Amino acid sequence: MAAELSPQLLSEKHRPTLDQALDAVRTRAYWSPHPEHPKAYGDGGAPGSLSAAEGKAAFDAVLHTRLDLGQPGTDGWTGGEVSPYGPELGVEYPHADLDVLLPAMRAGMAAWREAGPETRALVCLEILSRISARTHEFGHAVMHTSGQAFMMAFQAGGPHAQDRGLEAVTYAYEEQIRTPRTADWSKPQGKRDPLQLHKSFIAAGRGIALLIGCNTFPTWNGYPGLFASLATGNPVLVKPHPRAVLPLALTVQVARDVLSEAGFDPNLVCLAAERPGEGIAKTLAVRPEIRIIDYTGSTAFGDWLEANARQAQVYTEKAGVNTIVVDSTDDYRGMLANLAFSLSLYSGQMCTTPQNLLIPRDGITTDAGDKTYDEVAGDIAASVTGLLGDDARANALLGALVNPEVKARLEAAAGLGEIALASREVPNPEFPDAVVRTPLVVKLDGTKPDDGAAYLSECFGPVAFAVAVDSTADAVELLRRTIRDKGAMTVGAYTTSPDVERAVEDVCLEESAQLSLNLTGGVYVNQTAAFSDFHGSGGNPAANSALCDGAFVSNRFRMVEVRRQA
Amino acid sequence: MAAELSPQLLSEKHRPTLDQALDAVRTRAYWSPHPEHPKAYGDGGAPGSLSAAEGKAAFDAVLHTRLDLGQPGTDGWTGGEVSPYGPELGVEYPHADLDVLLPAMRAGMAAWREAGPETRALVCLEILSRISARTHEFGHAVMHTSGQAFMMAFQAGGPHAQDRGLEAVTYAYEEQIRTPRTADWSKPQGKRDPLQLHKSFIAAGRGIALLIGCNTFPTWNGYPGLFASLATGNPVLVKPHPRAVLPLALTVQVARDVLSEAGFDPNLVCLAAERPGEGIAKTLAVRPEIRIIDYTGSTAFGDWLEANARQAQVYTEKAGVNTIVVDSTDDYRGMLANLAFSLSLYSGQMCTTPQNLLIPRDGITTDAGDKTYDEVAGDIAASVTGLLGDDARANALLGALVNPEVKARLEAAAGLGEIALASREVPNPEFPDAVVRTPLVVKLDGTKPDDGAAYLSECFGPVAFAVAVDSTADAVELLRRTIRDKGAMTVGAYTTSPDVERAVEDVCLEESAQLSLNLTGGVYVNQTAAFSDFHGSGGNPAANSALCDGAFVSNRFRMVEVRRQA
Repeated sequence: MAAELSPQLLSEKHRPTLDQALDAVRTRAYWSPHPEHPKAYGDGGAPGSLSAAEGKAAFDAVLHTRLDLGQPGTDGWTGGEVSPYGPELGVEYPHADLDVLLPAMRAGMAAWREAGPETRALVCLEILSRISARTHEFGHAVMHTSGQAFMMAFQAGGPHAQDRGLEAVTYAYEEQIRTPRTADWSKPQGKRDPLQLHKSFIAAGRGIALLIGCNTFPTWNGYPGLFASLATGNPVLVKPHPRAVLPLALTVQVARDVLSEAGFDPNLVCLAAERPGEGIAKTLAVRPEIRIIDYTGSTAFGDWLEANARQAQVYTEKAGVNTIVVDSTDDYRGMLANLAFSLSLYSGQMCTTPQNLLIPRDGITTDAGDKTYDEVAGDIAASVTGLLGDDARANALLGALVNPEVKARLEAAAGLGEIALASREVPNPEFPDAVVRTPLVVKLDGTKPDDGAAYLSECFGPVAFAVAVDSTADAVELLRRTIRDKGAMTVGAYTTSPDVERAVEDVCLEESAQLSLNLTGGVYVNQTAAFSDFHGSGGNPAANSALCDGAFVSNRFRMVEVRRQA
Repeated sequence: MAAELSPQLLSEKHRPTLDQALDAVRTRAYWSPHPEHPKAYGDGGAPGSLSAAEGKAAFDAVLHTRLDLGQPGTDGWTGGEVSPYGPELGVEYPHADLDVLLPAMRAGMAAWREAGPETRALVCLEILSRISARTHEFGHAVMHTSGQAFMMAFQAGGPHAQDRGLEAVTYAYEEQIRTPRTADWSKPQGKRDPLQLHKSFIAAGRGIALLIGCNTFPTWNGYPGLFASLATGNPVLVKPHPRAVLPLALTVQVARDVLSEAGFDPNLVCLAAERPGEGIAKTLAVRPEIRIIDYTGSTAFGDWLEANARQAQVYTEKAGVNTIVVDSTDDYRGMLANLAFSLSLYSGQMCTTPQNLLIPRDGITTDAGDKTYDEVAGDIAASVTGLLGDDARANALLGALVNPEVKARLEAAAGLGEIALASREVPNPEFPDAVVRTPLVVKLDGTKPDDGAAYLSECFGPVAFAVAVDSTADAVELLRRTIRDKGAMTVGAYTTSPDVERAVEDVCLEESAQLSLNLTGGVYVNQTAAFSDFHGSGGNPAANSALCDGAFVSNRFRMVEVRRQA
């Protein structure tokens, strides 16, 4: 049977995009093929894409249905997602007998390997382009599993996630073609005939890859591993977070359709939804068939995976403590506005949200005059209050708390010290059950051991600590200790002093953390752009890999050489 | 103080070589800048290189001396190497107080990082070129620590090791320059001003790298890790095998000289020689300062490192069981000659030497007529006997047994089954104390569990098993099981059947092993050429990395980004 999606058709559709992506990761200039604006979809937008209304309708249509993916070994159905905004999603997903599913997933591996790096990359691009066309639908799916406000769910769960997936495909493709498919080798032997060999080099996947999804960014954090593994020749089993199944289940469905149409086994991508309390990640992680694992979540389980899933390559993103060093600024208002937005976006439920603001006890110099520690803490609080004063705007920025644990943590944090800014309950008229909270800012003392227990652990959610330190030098040393011991996805600093800038930079270079300096405009420390910014460094305890670099893809396959006498 | 080796001088001397190496790893064609012929050195050969006589004199001059490397924290002297050929080397090496040495090694890291990928690569090339000039001297040092015969020690310990070192530098350099040093990023915002950032990307080493050397190939197995780590910005602590210190100590000495002359801290490369029984590898491996480990040796210690040195990136090459599938051939004499050489070279003490020859019980078809299992085993035995009949030639091919454990293992193996070829003691007139032995070939039955216990574990040394299997299909299945459970650095097969060829290839692709097909000429399954062949796959239990690919270098540094508002 001829494939509907021939290699030629795939190449015509997607090779130019792949080439642009290859160029983008080399220049790190701004680039994305996935529009951020909601109006870029539907009539007059990207061909075949769903408009806002169509996307919403598609999302509504999947609610309270059974999503039958046609997977082998389906031994029942499971579901039970409840939106952080209140509604039950009511979608049922296949539950798998792993002893049937895993062998079935390996069946298509040889043909997938033989297809080669370019076809694999182009099939991945077709999957991404179909997901892109349904960005509005995915936006609602991400909103109602993560609690992100719609515009953020649309952008971060849509184009930004697709960008990171494409970036991973790009690195995977480039890594595999560093070695030619064949080579003729001829070694001179003086007067004798040369030694001659004909060599073949085949990029061979390692085996089944397991993606363990997270609750807050199911697509953004899931796509890099999923597409890196698939593009390097591995089947991928997607194990979503039980509270955020739908965005990844839809992704699996699209991938299976595209694989089939391109003439490959759809079982190269499967879903492993679990029953409540089943905890299949732990079982799956140590199965011998699982050779690659991507995980985003708690440090405890990430560490467990690294220690126990020894048969697999394990890529983890875990907890960290993100720090901002506040030394001085020539744009005090810009700094306050930038920090207020960073603390507020998605109620601080990003792995990149700043937590500790290190402020010298004796105050800082600014273009608006010297400011005491109390003034800085108070002005940050006022800036957040100003940003979130309007409930509609607050809802649009904050989204909902993703789960009751975040709410509990927020409530407990109020007792940790003097409150610079209390958290406010924001009503949501459209979703009265949504738990919407503004950030809490607590004052702590960097020299008190009791306070250290608080600011030296991740307090995931809308909680920031204004930590008083004896000096900027002490802030830099606390920054170093924090990165080294606790990890950091992001570091920020505000300073007008070249010496301080250099000191912070040195700490980040030595402890391997990504640094944003003096952000006062519309770029925030918690946001990174695919093809240009690295997400995490892979060199401190917050994550053992970065998105995306050579190391993220190069060990997902092995180059097997077959040499023959010529 | 101006450096004697300026970046400009280094670039003039070595940039063309680096460019050729970059090209070679992309084409995989034959290439090497390091001549294999002994006469290429000295007068009329490479400028400044030592002739055979000069190299021997230099080696003799270092014997019974104290090799003072000028390292910080030297708290005594240690030594005690005895050549497998008999003589005591009598060289004394510095013993280090690690609490002094390790901090001193980190002191030069910032300047080494700031030098950037190109300067680091060129400094590494200068180190390699000085080692190359002393290839004759290194040949003797490798011979008298590994037991390799001189010509092999000269080539494998000299140009081939240097090639692998250069290959690692090449990959390291290319990996680091995939990301530009700086980028300007401008994101359109419709009618508003674009968002603009200036970004810096700095390749930052992880910390001190530990090289744990091996007894049999101190330079060949040591240089890839050493140079990959150094070129990616890490200080390297070299912990040689206690029986093979000299080649790596001389390497450290050269590296320290070059680093100094280029204006860097010589303590970026240090030696950690140990006292008898001290076992410092285990202590060092879990020190927090050690962030990268390269190891070649036993599976037991390799597995221990992978499980316990969790603060480090660990690259291991361990034991494996290399298999040859003998199905059929159209060049029976060529096959026998090729196998005889492979089994004999360095008394089978290579990680790539074939161990199990899987031969169908009912015999094979060849251009010389059908041959029974007994005939094939007998003809292999006769071919080895013919190859090694002359004692001088035998000594030149076999070298000496590297240590008493190999001798004991050889003697015990004679009791494992029917002997197809007994091991012969070869006298060495020049070194009467050398233990020189021809290969033992034992017949085993692939269907007997007792025999399986023998052929399914590595019997390192001059021991091969002629394993009778019920069919070629069974041989292919046994091959699969062997690679999967025991690992393999090499796989060979002889067949005239496209179906068998395909079946063996599929197993190697699925289990990740490097395959040589129908070698009957002057290329042997146990030899790989840098820049073209991969050594190991990194995808089976014999090794967790390959020499050399992107994965071998990409996690030795992290790309740290510093972004500033433009």
